[in-house]
Amino acid sequence: MTIHVKQQFPVIDALQASNWNRKLFEDLAHSGLDAVHVTLVYWENCRQTLPIIGQWNRWFREHGDLILSVRRAADIRTAHEAGKTGIILGFQNSSPIDDDLSLIQILHDLGIRIMQMTYNNQTLIGAGCYEQNDGGITKFGKNVIREMNRAGMVIDLSHTSEKTSFDAIEISEDPVAITHANPLFFHKAVRNKSDALLKELARKGGILGFSIYPLHLLKGTECTLESFCEMISRTADMIGVEHIGIGSDLCQGWGPEQLKYMRSGTWTFESDPGESAGDPDWPEYPAWYRESADFQNIARGLSNAGFSDKEAGLILGGNWFRFFENEFGA
Amino acid sequence: MTIHVKQQFPVIDALQASNWNRKLFEDLAHSGLDAVHVTLVYWENCRQTLPIIGQWNRWFREHGDLILSVRRAADIRTAHEAGKTGIILGFQNSSPIDDDLSLIQILHDLGIRIMQMTYNNQTLIGAGCYEQNDGGITKFGKNVIREMNRAGMVIDLSHTSEKTSFDAIEISEDPVAITHANPLFFHKAVRNKSDALLKELARKGGILGFSIYPLHLLKGTECTLESFCEMISRTADMIGVEHIGIGSDLCQGWGPEQLKYMRSGTWTFESDPGESAGDPDWPEYPAWYRESADFQNIARGLSNAGFSDKEAGLILGGNWFRFFENEFGA
Repeated sequence: MTIHVKQQFPVIDALQASNWNRKLFEDLAHSGLDAVHVTLVYWENCRQTLPIIGQWNRWFREHGDLILSVRRAADIRTAHEAGKTGIILGFQNSSPIDDDLSLIQILHDLGIRIMQMTYNNQTLIGAGCYEQNDGGITKFGKNVIREMNRAGMVIDLSHTSEKTSFDAIEISEDPVAITHANPLFFHKAVRNKSDALLKELARKGGILGFSIYPLHLLKGTECTLESFCEMISRTADMIGVEHIGIGSDLCQGWGPEQLKYMRSGTWTFESDPGESAGDPDWPEYPAWYRESADFQNIARGLSNAGFSDKEAGLILGGNWFRFFENEFGA
Repeated sequence: MTIHVKQQFPVIDALQASNWNRKLFEDLAHSGLDAVHVTLVYWENCRQTLPIIGQWNRWFREHGDLILSVRRAADIRTAHEAGKTGIILGFQNSSPIDDDLSLIQILHDLGIRIMQMTYNNQTLIGAGCYEQNDGGITKFGKNVIREMNRAGMVIDLSHTSEKTSFDAIEISEDPVAITHANPLFFHKAVRNKSDALLKELARKGGILGFSIYPLHLLKGTECTLESFCEMISRTADMIGVEHIGIGSDLCQGWGPEQLKYMRSGTWTFESDPGESAGDPDWPEYPAWYRESADFQNIARGLSNAGFSDKEAGLILGGNWFRFFENEFGA
């Protein structure tokens, strides 16, 4: 199965957070996706993170016929040519660096290429999107951003609150990413982003990955492909087609315990509802996007929405590839 | 200053454990040494080890005109050609892997190339040389040795007790090292090694680095260069000249607090005497070996003891280079 656009650009999903196993790696390798950014961490500290990296090291050896580790952008081309999927390792929180600036290079050496500043809550770096108060980037956070720039690790603001995001964009010498979120104009979720923020992100060379997590979508599970692609079209008009991509937020194979962990970690003894109205189970993805191979439905949708082949190619991965080339080396 | 042997082999010191600063890196770069194995850890666990690796990452950047990180043997040639010294990162204890097998690959990815099984005391892997009881290699230890073989990390038995050392040599698929110790026949220190152990080490392709730490020497500080080289000669006759090298155990720039830490760590509230008769301060090195540049005195001593230029070149680094080529890749 291949994505139905001309393959002048790699095809990249800038976020999946599944409960990985060989079946899902086979799905990836047959999906037409050349690279996927995967989530290793929501709340883990440094020491808790290392065995998770260890697990990926073993998966890269055991399933080397299907996946490979992306250390630089060229590895995505290598994956494409070998019929495999490149895996970009990332954290949805800055918890793995504890309060230790030297851990950024160390985690980069271990293959981590993307790190969110915050996951919903306040961190040592800044405020998460579910905090009531937003004090912006901290003293430590400034150092973290500069060190990530130096080391070549992507700054991700997906779950970060507004002022902290503006601060991060201003402080960073490199363009930054929102790997998985949608514009607020499309759907009023706390996780979605204001026009002002998206414009500033793009003005500084950054990139937004559109999410298909139902709580970020107009009408949730019932959101149509047409409606999703119309949002993409409107965003392209607003910030430029070169500043958008897909970060589908596809989460496969988890039960409700994982959702509870993602929402509540160890920071509360209650069940935090997250963005849901209190539903303790996973929302159902729209019928046109249930697995990696459904990326081709997005390709079809973009074509139907009037995007040229080249524009669709940029949105489906070309823009992410260029961004990654700049951030972590060609 | 250069080592006075023909430079057909790299010149390598298989252990130094100094309180590093730019002055000492300058000494190294001007000493004629192409590579040095340095000690990062005596007692630290995984989490405590990471900022130490972080400090070396910064030193490699800040003093890149003098030193470089050795990831594979060819880096030692690169260092030689650039007039720098290659630094091989190592641990004197297995404490950095906690009880987690996946940390071996992770620490290898961070540049660690040599790890001792034990430092004086019992570890999760086996018995140290100062333990009264020696139960040999543990269940976990077996897995550690096999995973170190797979990852390409050198097994070092310098501070390991006799039965545990024999076990390790037997279990390991690769030759192993004793980076810094002397034969017991030369001086009866607990840290020195029996003829039987050295013969078995060599029979399986391993290598011994001779130590100049005074407590390992006949007559300590007063040990003559002639006496030291006579020991080398006798060892060469016993196990073969291709199985010996130098691991000088040079420790510069430390005060007595560090020595106390090395001996007592956090495992006792007393001052453990180690191999000393209770002296709380550092022993003085012999007059012919006080700094890295004194490596040339050893070259002179080997020549006077009747070694050919080629044999001296093997002992001063050629054997270590071949061993490292096999262990962590050409």
